[in-house]
Amino acid sequence: MKHSIATRLADLRALMERQGIAAAIVPQGDPHMSEYLSDHWQLRRWLSGFTGSAGDLVVTATRALLWTDSRYFLQAGEQLAGTGIELMKDGLEDTPSIASWLCSELSRGQRVGIDGMTFSAVAAEDLRMRLEADGIVLDAAFDPAAVWHDRPALPDARIFEHEVRYAGLSAADKMMQVMAGVKARRADSMFISALDEIAWILNIRANDVTYNPVVTSFLYLTDCGATLFIDPAKVDDAAAAYLRSQGVDTLPYSAVKDFLGSLPASARVLVEGGRTAASIVELLGSRAVKAASPVAMLKACKNEVQLRGVRDAMVRDGQAMVRSLCEIQTRVAAGERLTELDVADILRRHRSASPLFFDESFGTIAGYGPHGAIVHYEADADSASTLEPRGLLLIDSGAQYLDGTTDITRTIALGTPTADERRDFTLVMKGHIALGAAIFPAGTAGAQLDALARQYLWREGLSYLHGTGHGVGHFLNVHEGPQSIRLNYVPTPLTPGMITSNEPGLYREGIHGIRCENLVLTVEAMTTDFGRFLRFETLTLCPFELSLFDTALMTPAEIEWLNEYHARVREALAPGLDGEALRWLEKNTRPLTL
Amino acid sequence: MKHSIATRLADLRALMERQGIAAAIVPQGDPHMSEYLSDHWQLRRWLSGFTGSAGDLVVTATRALLWTDSRYFLQAGEQLAGTGIELMKDGLEDTPSIASWLCSELSRGQRVGIDGMTFSAVAAEDLRMRLEADGIVLDAAFDPAAVWHDRPALPDARIFEHEVRYAGLSAADKMMQVMAGVKARRADSMFISALDEIAWILNIRANDVTYNPVVTSFLYLTDCGATLFIDPAKVDDAAAAYLRSQGVDTLPYSAVKDFLGSLPASARVLVEGGRTAASIVELLGSRAVKAASPVAMLKACKNEVQLRGVRDAMVRDGQAMVRSLCEIQTRVAAGERLTELDVADILRRHRSASPLFFDESFGTIAGYGPHGAIVHYEADADSASTLEPRGLLLIDSGAQYLDGTTDITRTIALGTPTADERRDFTLVMKGHIALGAAIFPAGTAGAQLDALARQYLWREGLSYLHGTGHGVGHFLNVHEGPQSIRLNYVPTPLTPGMITSNEPGLYREGIHGIRCENLVLTVEAMTTDFGRFLRFETLTLCPFELSLFDTALMTPAEIEWLNEYHARVREALAPGLDGEALRWLEKNTRPLTL
Repeated sequence: MKHSIATRLADLRALMERQGIAAAIVPQGDPHMSEYLSDHWQLRRWLSGFTGSAGDLVVTATRALLWTDSRYFLQAGEQLAGTGIELMKDGLEDTPSIASWLCSELSRGQRVGIDGMTFSAVAAEDLRMRLEADGIVLDAAFDPAAVWHDRPALPDARIFEHEVRYAGLSAADKMMQVMAGVKARRADSMFISALDEIAWILNIRANDVTYNPVVTSFLYLTDCGATLFIDPAKVDDAAAAYLRSQGVDTLPYSAVKDFLGSLPASARVLVEGGRTAASIVELLGSRAVKAASPVAMLKACKNEVQLRGVRDAMVRDGQAMVRSLCEIQTRVAAGERLTELDVADILRRHRSASPLFFDESFGTIAGYGPHGAIVHYEADADSASTLEPRGLLLIDSGAQYLDGTTDITRTIALGTPTADERRDFTLVMKGHIALGAAIFPAGTAGAQLDALARQYLWREGLSYLHGTGHGVGHFLNVHEGPQSIRLNYVPTPLTPGMITSNEPGLYREGIHGIRCENLVLTVEAMTTDFGRFLRFETLTLCPFELSLFDTALMTPAEIEWLNEYHARVREALAPGLDGEALRWLEKNTRPLTL
Repeated sequence: MKHSIATRLADLRALMERQGIAAAIVPQGDPHMSEYLSDHWQLRRWLSGFTGSAGDLVVTATRALLWTDSRYFLQAGEQLAGTGIELMKDGLEDTPSIASWLCSELSRGQRVGIDGMTFSAVAAEDLRMRLEADGIVLDAAFDPAAVWHDRPALPDARIFEHEVRYAGLSAADKMMQVMAGVKARRADSMFISALDEIAWILNIRANDVTYNPVVTSFLYLTDCGATLFIDPAKVDDAAAAYLRSQGVDTLPYSAVKDFLGSLPASARVLVEGGRTAASIVELLGSRAVKAASPVAMLKACKNEVQLRGVRDAMVRDGQAMVRSLCEIQTRVAAGERLTELDVADILRRHRSASPLFFDESFGTIAGYGPHGAIVHYEADADSASTLEPRGLLLIDSGAQYLDGTTDITRTIALGTPTADERRDFTLVMKGHIALGAAIFPAGTAGAQLDALARQYLWREGLSYLHGTGHGVGHFLNVHEGPQSIRLNYVPTPLTPGMITSNEPGLYREGIHGIRCENLVLTVEAMTTDFGRFLRFETLTLCPFELSLFDTALMTPAEIEWLNEYHARVREALAPGLDGEALRWLEKNTRPLTL
């Protein structure tokens, strides 16, 4: 492997030299600005050997460097060892940005090459301005993938309709809603690259990206219909008939640039600069109307049919969770030598037995003891720990059901918990409850509520570095925008119909990790003389580990919240359970007292 | 008055017509982007008759409109009645922005006139882009003040040195610090318009703007010295000698444009676009290096000498507050017919008797009963209520001492409080305590903590529309940046040495207003495996009204915080008090129990 990396980098450097490129940037990126990529777009992985889901590679004639964030410092360090690629720890104070590093490394007049299809227009423009300030030229027509001789093909999975009985609204209706937003932004058409936006609008799904049931395609929307750019092999007769019925034509995926290039000069095409490739926006030129996509908010605010589906899915998912947690705790207590990989298998088995199950919504994180402290830990055959009847097990998992997407984290005790484990867990849960029980004025953004989940940890000098909440799609990506609840400011207000996670945590390196995650729905709370107020309805249904609560650290109101939640969980899940799992549910939802 | 307004608008319209201006915008603004203006710059007030501290006037050939925010809806409505000027309520959902309104009102090719000296470069550029999108032209060389025949002169108060024994750092040292920041931003000089920045850097003060001891001037800083643009009449021999000793030359205030225009083309002059006039930045052209001013953070983070001064000032201010509150409550209880104006007089009398007193730091807000619910209420002879031995009195006041600036709000009961009054007050105080007791990671911005102060009100469907905290200067403006604690996101982290207010409130229209305000200093809390944590040290020393606490709504930790604060207040203030005031202090700082 190390040898292949050297050869690959040498090939890239030869290409760079031929084309007069002093430095190339190969990002984790695709023409759809996806968070997770199909294999076809994993050039950075192929060139560097680093398999993490975030990281940008920079190659010059003499050096190669990989920027990645704190989640991957350990993994990148291991995977890059011996390749000569230097690890740049993003987010640390003395780590320069890629642009700053390039400015300090290159001379005036030298050229930086990127593939403008793998950078958003906003990112490329920002990079261009920062380089130009130092006289360095950005060439967005460089194609580093030209050296990738065994590049995997584009995904070829067949698409299928996501039926209106789940989606709640037809593709034709959604296109009308989107076009109203397009016109409000003074454009007459819209070009969409974001795969989850296309899947949502057209009510289509495929299996193109692991865990993300999206369709590799572009979409051009007008008042008179839509054009979907997609590999014809992905569209069978039924799908073709469905698309036609919604007024959608198809053209090959590869035809998109020619199509856009031949639009009349008078066209006013809405594109979101942060979610559209730089090359596309450049191609549109003065035809581009750069504005926020109207799709994000429409998609984020779920309709009643979707919400009914999610509530149903939560019952099935909760029952699968109860069966899984019961099985894990029982087998560990009985002395079986389960591993972290077995935990993921148990969850998959119980979930996949559930009606409407399609896939997991992400790779299960089952972190036992110290592994729980590695935030994005995913066990493999080499790393998987064996569970002992002691310590904490963090399980973050979820599923794609046809009627909704789930994402849940529970931290359970495999033996009698220690005082430290109970204190840490209780501090995390106090934040989870403070956020879950919050009432806030309409218009409030997630960043304004984030501290509610952190305040009790902060008081003890504790913290967690990840966000507290991300948006969740409907039988779509488990991470979606535009809202979030995190330290970084995102102005989108939490709006009725949005589904967001509530997942504070605490990670003690080498000891244990704790995270407590429910999905919550933003709903109306009350309207007073002071305006409209909203609150969260908790959607996820699964007990929290009772033995981990230290009630001496809790207020009566917090205990009441927990008891009410557990009563609701018991009532919702009991009807589908029996035997040991039902007894486990009853035992794990009994009321706590001060 | 109504007649004069009509004449003034007619004069302006005649001028507009002669110069081909279809609409003029007259903002609340001066060439220094000040929050509070000297009379010379109160053109908007003169043209409209509206005296509020925020509001922009727009005049077309047929219409005149004034945009102002919720603080002034009532007052503006009254003052504009009969003038034909329409009130535009800024911040309401259906109120268009000025730019939107102009775009809907004017035709392509028409011209909007502004005085580019009264708009920041950022504001003017934003306006220009929004107008240009609709084909409307912005002319920043229009001078609406040309019709102001009896315009007041520029302030002519003499400047004086703010001695290093108070400021802690010499002007020469500060200029070196600032120039280091200038170079880090790749500029070789800096042009400063902000009056509080100039006063801070040069350790000079004057009485140019009511309550703000600033000096009307511009400052040009280089490595080889500084040039202060100032009316020569303001600089007596002592001040001239002082400025020379710090390496500061002077030129007339009116010479600034000629000076900047004649800088060499190679000059790289740092200007902050949001705090520098559009005309100045345009004049600098390619010589302007637009970046955030390094002064704001240097000024915000007080040094040890300043902090010692502030702590001393807080003792004297607290004693003046105790004497005032004691006198007010005693005289009202004795049946005297005090008014809201008397309250302001009593505070001024006790404060001005204190050593190092210079001025009040803003006009005292003394709002009795329903007047307390008008957030920026300032009593006048017509409006002033007479205090009765019942209900709530809100008093927001502060002083400029040579060693520090104070700003404090107390809400007191004039009789036996009702259950509603106690409940409202306690909910506000719970938020005040949650913020005052917060511990948070270094790097946290105020917007991330704002919800801590609001959470208990929100849970009851209550809220307040103003910010929770603003920065406070040192013998300078009572409002300063860059930090704040408010719903609007401002990225500046709360940093050790910053002084910020903590002032949640609750306003029930027609009933009462409550606000509880202390100034707090950001200090180190602890450093753990999870990083550096900060907390607030409360600087303000004055009891909160004990009879207004409903302990049934409080946690033991909240009561403990209050009792510790009151013990500290008693210990600090008692030595300077005697007789009735000392007895009042002791009575009002006794511990509460659950």
